[in-house]
Amino acid sequence: MPPQTSRIGKQRYLEIAEGLFTERGYKSVSIRDIAQACGVTNAALYYHFENKEALFTEVLENHAGRLSDHMRQAAAGEMDTQEQVIAMLTEYATLAAHCRSPLFTLRHKSAGIDKEQARQQHANLVRGILMPIEATLNQAVESGELRPLPEGYSAASLLLGMLHGMFQHRRMCCHEGVAPEDVRIIVDIFWNGMEEK
Amino acid sequence: MPPQTSRIGKQRYLEIAEGLFTERGYKSVSIRDIAQACGVTNAALYYHFENKEALFTEVLENHAGRLSDHMRQAAAGEMDTQEQVIAMLTEYATLAAHCRSPLFTLRHKSAGIDKEQARQQHANLVRGILMPIEATLNQAVESGELRPLPEGYSAASLLLGMLHGMFQHRRMCCHEGVAPEDVRIIVDIFWNGMEEK
Repeated sequence: MPPQTSRIGKQRYLEIAEGLFTERGYKSVSIRDIAQACGVTNAALYYHFENKEALFTEVLENHAGRLSDHMRQAAAGEMDTQEQVIAMLTEYATLAAHCRSPLFTLRHKSAGIDKEQARQQHANLVRGILMPIEATLNQAVESGELRPLPEGYSAASLLLGMLHGMFQHRRMCCHEGVAPEDVRIIVDIFWNGMEEK
Repeated sequence: MPPQTSRIGKQRYLEIAEGLFTERGYKSVSIRDIAQACGVTNAALYYHFENKEALFTEVLENHAGRLSDHMRQAAAGEMDTQEQVIAMLTEYATLAAHCRSPLFTLRHKSAGIDKEQARQQHANLVRGILMPIEATLNQAVESGELRPLPEGYSAASLLLGMLHGMFQHRRMCCHEGVAPEDVRIIVDIFWNGMEEK
């Protein structure tokens, strides 16, 4: 078995492909471009991925899995619930939402993919990212720290929505990224509300 | 001056164009398609709009202006700040974020438009929508009802972000829209926080 067909090879192809997709968009990158950047033949890529669409799907899954792992690790130490949530959102803000994640730059560009399939795929990935936050918030509800929400609501979605609102505002007004202090303020509003006490 | 070059004609063209763009996307709709749907010649459209891009820009501005007006009207009666914000967000949720607004369905599809220009355009439109909410929240800060946020933060962006988080969650889990009750819960979290009192 040649080295490029090993598992390490596949992981490397996914990372190189992620870089190219993120930089140039889905449509402008061909299997040939990726093979060239990896220094292998097209056939070596087709050994692992049926076509460009399948490769792209694995790039997204690989990215979301990595992100979810990092978020869990960031919140693994001895800390209270708020600090756990702050650690996870900071990790997310740093890794994913820096406007350079394939999740966000590509989901609207993947015109080659069937719309309903793309929606499902995206939903699965977002669910994977929300899961560690949702689990932590659910624990805080069970312990009586946070109040429960009615069925059909996701506290993690609301919290992540606030963070995205912040990203958007920053992009609009000053191109700046989101700082750890920003995540802290958002989590504080989520916990304590904006009402003057 | 033929009737189709009147101001009422122009408004009608914009509404018909908005319907077509929203249904089919920016790229799939030509000036010819719009002219046919309006029952006029291409020349009648070119009298008002230099090209498709300019027409699309006016469609977006027209949509955002209408939305902003509706939001202000919804919050015009005798009501407290929370009720005002609820009225504006409900109007927004009903009119815009029903996944059928050209603002949201088209901003990523408008590949013909220069990227930086599209970003600026989008920022202007979002600012127009945020403004009535931001003004109301600022008043509440001045009256001592809400606490102030540090400079560089936009309370309206965070609130709208939560609403979008809710939309996304609903789309992911059950395709349902957002109900007035949902807006009420989001505003309550924003005011009072999630912490069990």
